[in-house]
Amino acid sequence: MNRRLALGLDYGTESARALLVDVETGEELATDVLEYPHGVMDDRLPDSGVKLEPEWALQDPEDYLLALRTLIPNVLKQANVQPEEVIGVGVDFTACTVLPADENYRPLCMDPELRNRPHAWVKLWKHHAAQEEADRMTAVAKETGETFLNRYGGTISSEWLWPKIWQVLNEDPELYDRAARFIEAGDWIVQQLTGVDARSACQAGYKGCWSSEAGYPSKEFLRALDPRLEDLVGSKVQPDVHPLGAKAGELNERGAELTGLKPGTPVAVSVIDAHVAAPAATMVRPGQLLMIMGTSLCHMALGPGDREVKGVAGVVKDGILPDFHGYEAGQAAVGDIFVWFTRHGVPASYAEEANREGKSVYDLLEERAAALRPGESGVLALDWWNGSRSPVMDSALSGMMVGVTLETRPEDLYRALIEATAFGTRRIVETLRDQGVPVDEILCCGGLAEKNDLLMQIYADVLQTELKVARSSQACALGSAMWGAVAAGAGSGGYDSIQDAAGKMAGLRPKTYPPNPAHREVYDALYAEYLTLARYFGEGGNDVMRRLRALRHS
Amino acid sequence: MNRRLALGLDYGTESARALLVDVETGEELATDVLEYPHGVMDDRLPDSGVKLEPEWALQDPEDYLLALRTLIPNVLKQANVQPEEVIGVGVDFTACTVLPADENYRPLCMDPELRNRPHAWVKLWKHHAAQEEADRMTAVAKETGETFLNRYGGTISSEWLWPKIWQVLNEDPELYDRAARFIEAGDWIVQQLTGVDARSACQAGYKGCWSSEAGYPSKEFLRALDPRLEDLVGSKVQPDVHPLGAKAGELNERGAELTGLKPGTPVAVSVIDAHVAAPAATMVRPGQLLMIMGTSLCHMALGPGDREVKGVAGVVKDGILPDFHGYEAGQAAVGDIFVWFTRHGVPASYAEEANREGKSVYDLLEERAAALRPGESGVLALDWWNGSRSPVMDSALSGMMVGVTLETRPEDLYRALIEATAFGTRRIVETLRDQGVPVDEILCCGGLAEKNDLLMQIYADVLQTELKVARSSQACALGSAMWGAVAAGAGSGGYDSIQDAAGKMAGLRPKTYPPNPAHREVYDALYAEYLTLARYFGEGGNDVMRRLRALRHS
Repeated sequence: MNRRLALGLDYGTESARALLVDVETGEELATDVLEYPHGVMDDRLPDSGVKLEPEWALQDPEDYLLALRTLIPNVLKQANVQPEEVIGVGVDFTACTVLPADENYRPLCMDPELRNRPHAWVKLWKHHAAQEEADRMTAVAKETGETFLNRYGGTISSEWLWPKIWQVLNEDPELYDRAARFIEAGDWIVQQLTGVDARSACQAGYKGCWSSEAGYPSKEFLRALDPRLEDLVGSKVQPDVHPLGAKAGELNERGAELTGLKPGTPVAVSVIDAHVAAPAATMVRPGQLLMIMGTSLCHMALGPGDREVKGVAGVVKDGILPDFHGYEAGQAAVGDIFVWFTRHGVPASYAEEANREGKSVYDLLEERAAALRPGESGVLALDWWNGSRSPVMDSALSGMMVGVTLETRPEDLYRALIEATAFGTRRIVETLRDQGVPVDEILCCGGLAEKNDLLMQIYADVLQTELKVARSSQACALGSAMWGAVAAGAGSGGYDSIQDAAGKMAGLRPKTYPPNPAHREVYDALYAEYLTLARYFGEGGNDVMRRLRALRHS
Repeated sequence: MNRRLALGLDYGTESARALLVDVETGEELATDVLEYPHGVMDDRLPDSGVKLEPEWALQDPEDYLLALRTLIPNVLKQANVQPEEVIGVGVDFTACTVLPADENYRPLCMDPELRNRPHAWVKLWKHHAAQEEADRMTAVAKETGETFLNRYGGTISSEWLWPKIWQVLNEDPELYDRAARFIEAGDWIVQQLTGVDARSACQAGYKGCWSSEAGYPSKEFLRALDPRLEDLVGSKVQPDVHPLGAKAGELNERGAELTGLKPGTPVAVSVIDAHVAAPAATMVRPGQLLMIMGTSLCHMALGPGDREVKGVAGVVKDGILPDFHGYEAGQAAVGDIFVWFTRHGVPASYAEEANREGKSVYDLLEERAAALRPGESGVLALDWWNGSRSPVMDSALSGMMVGVTLETRPEDLYRALIEATAFGTRRIVETLRDQGVPVDEILCCGGLAEKNDLLMQIYADVLQTELKVARSSQACALGSAMWGAVAAGAGSGGYDSIQDAAGKMAGLRPKTYPPNPAHREVYDALYAEYLTLARYFGEGGNDVMRRLRALRHS
């Protein structure tokens, strides 16, 4: 029995996945997925039927445990694997996804008495109801001159840890008092497996304003926010933070019982579901840019920590790979724009034609859009259908299209939308390069990178850079398995560094997307137009987008 | 036998219509329509199958004669009317719709030898293939300082008379030589009925650069264009021009035979199909603005001739009503935008739902858009889907939308498109008012005015002016009948002025659209945004629309 396997657990927004990987070869032996039975709860609580306010998004932690109980036994059985063959476990999770728990780490929503209280449940990353708290936190941080703001482009997001906890305090103070812990769901899974509360540097850094140099926001700052928050760190929030690659602990009896794995199996500290993809896409050094291309687009790069980089959504030392500063930037909607367009903007005649030809509406649109040369659509768009994340963080910005005529067809708009997202990415890449973060190789993963040839070619042409795609179509789960192998260490059949793990377990596809030099000139011209419009609408030339949004909600 | 009736003939783009009206009461006794059997020929010639170039649009004059032969006997029969009861005939026609004819006014395309020559046929108003000639004419007129340019906002349209004739000369000089006449189709119908070639001031003024003060463009100018054009006026183009309301002639034997009407019946000089609607909508004095609301929107106003008015598409003395300067402005696409949107931008799910509920997609959209309050869509558009006509004439401008988000639904876009066209109209109204052309009452006619309640209310709210709708849903044909009654004159049972005719024959509907004062503030704010963007994109702030169009065609 020479096989050494690592198990990756990937907790996404709608489902969880387990992947069993050969540590030596990277071969993926078995995988299984569970759609969360309770999904994303944004309308009502289960059982009690209590109505939720707009912008809420909750989850049920029982779904997470169900994933442990079913997925792991399933993959072991699928691949006919003995528990001893699994040398390490890694976990990634959406973030900031946070839950209140009692002193035994039992989520408060599992208490029958508290089930009808919305704040007792898990707040999912996309719970956006703490915007007021986020705005106040940004304002106070500016007033008191907190330097952590510089690491996040000057704005605290409502998706992050502190606004979410503060919202509980403001809206349900009694429940806040009953919470012994507010814990990231990824850390909570690790705790359920090992009994250890090992706070991850990745979540703490990107979502909790923590840094290895300065720690969490100070007592003074928290008091300035709200005197009741003063002692949060060290009481309800775990103060000890662990770098990626560290072993959080080992599977305890309860964890072994839950999963069917062997007690004593090393478990890595958890990682954000985006950042975990980096090593699985062979990202191991500064100069590489990773793009995770799905509903939104996340860009990650490694670089020097010696300068401030404006226009990124976050910079965290050790946040992507140990010993490097990890820069994160993003576009708030990419795949979501195409879903929006096919759902709300493609006429019945196209649906009928696609149906007749036995293809999807996407395929039909892609076929027709691919037949257009760059510039032929006549349409140019700004890609802010869900606001802008980088380089300008402003959720009040919105989408724009110019050049539409009576001759414009759905494929023209579709192509213009793809191009707009490509220009948005080019702007982020140039923002990084201009400030000394090197980008000499672009790695991609995610659904769009795997499935959308036209989009990939347009991105390559707009960026005039070859795009490479991660071999695994489960880069997140693979990344988790790799961190599991690193938690085990070379001595236990794993690896001592994530670079070593990447050398063996990760890889790229043979098919790449080299740029078409014939498209360079037109796309340079269109990108220049994009930039002019992005500055006009996004940076003070004309604040019409913000005013339209205000009118919409007035 | 006391009835006195007038017959109106209305030649539109796709069909012709006859309407029999009681001169005393305006009662519409009978009507009939003929879809032109040959329609708009924009692909191939009939019989020969000769392929047409892009931007061509031709018609077959046999269709026009067929309308005379069938519609008039039909309406006489329908209403059980004796030919003697018809005291006058009026004709309106699209313009500039021009045909080459021999010295007997036989269209050249009726010569079997010439039927395979595209230039032998009628060039319909929307034949746009003479753009090069139009551009050269504008340029030469600027160089030589022709004052007629000032009456047309500084630009000659490819739709007008001279570019169309010049195109024949440039592309088929032999056929040009064989043409004894180039004649507006409206004047040609009058000629067919009466034997008289009575050139109308309306067409000559709005489409032929003629004015009562200065006549046609000078010999010198025409020579500067092309020496071969020097003697055009007086040879191939009829030099004598007749004001609206004049009697062109009386039905001759051939005309009586064609129509079943009585020889000697007075026939009015022809009128453009837009301008003819003015008296039918009770427009008789300065201060009234008429909006003809269909695929495009045409605005007409009367005013003082003592100043230059910028931003109008044309000003012609006696061009709408005798003794006044008639100002014409327009939006190149209105109804066409909604057709475009429902055809290319409304998803299958809406089509299915409309179908299920037994209504049209328009009705469903209107229902949902009507449920939104002003500003709630969050979307603002510029309405230049077919370029801009007034106050900036530039066919290279294009549509723009801003404020689109993942939450945007088709009804949001639909409402924003309606609002954009309303802002475009408000801009034209303000352009007129700012230059001393009074607008104190707004009259409407056309399909949109009759059918689209939501659109009418939005226009009233945006303009903060009550909108009134012409009683007749056949305002053009009614207008023609009214001019027929004026051609007859009071002595023959008609009227001596169009004002007298309007007092008896025209009227408004009881239902009007008063503005909702609660919507004023939001629409003022949105209109201010529209203006800023219209100036930015249309007047030199950012010429991206023109550059995108150039890229599209490069």
